[in-house]
Amino acid sequence: MNENVLGIIAGLLTSGSMIPQLIKVIKEKNADDLSSGMLIVLISGVSLWIWYGFLKDELPIILTNAFSVVVNVTLLIYCLIYKNK
Amino acid sequence: MNENVLGIIAGLLTSGSMIPQLIKVIKEKNADDLSSGMLIVLISGVSLWIWYGFLKDELPIILTNAFSVVVNVTLLIYCLIYKNK
Repeated sequence: MNENVLGIIAGLLTSGSMIPQLIKVIKEKNADDLSSGMLIVLISGVSLWIWYGFLKDELPIILTNAFSVVVNVTLLIYCLIYKNK
Repeated sequence: MNENVLGIIAGLLTSGSMIPQLIKVIKEKNADDLSSGMLIVLISGVSLWIWYGFLKDELPIILTNAFSVVVNVTLLIYCLIYKNK
């Protein structure tokens, strides 16, 4: 299989696995199950992967981790909003 | 920064972010908050990343995703055990 296609599929699966969590938080307006500390660690890690992708010039790593940052930053924002309520 | 060191740190952060969840499940003997479907998607994605790592011959990707498979397969096993109770 083409490496880039493989990387994009792998990245869509790993980033996409957070989407059901995001939908659950939005629907239930509740983020008690989520740890904001865990999200901050995850966002840091994903951001470093983007940096790694730029250094290695690997588009699948850059694109899928950028998507992952968007999903997880959104989760973190909801997490902070609902926990303060 | 050395690319491999960067990749290892990035991978430790992204894989490590699941460990608090694992500890919580083991302590509380409860996995109701976890979706086994999400875990299966995540494990598939991480496995593809390992394949990608082998194709590209990138050790940080192989090692950190292998660690992630171990953590998530353990979570899935607990998830299946506790949900059947």
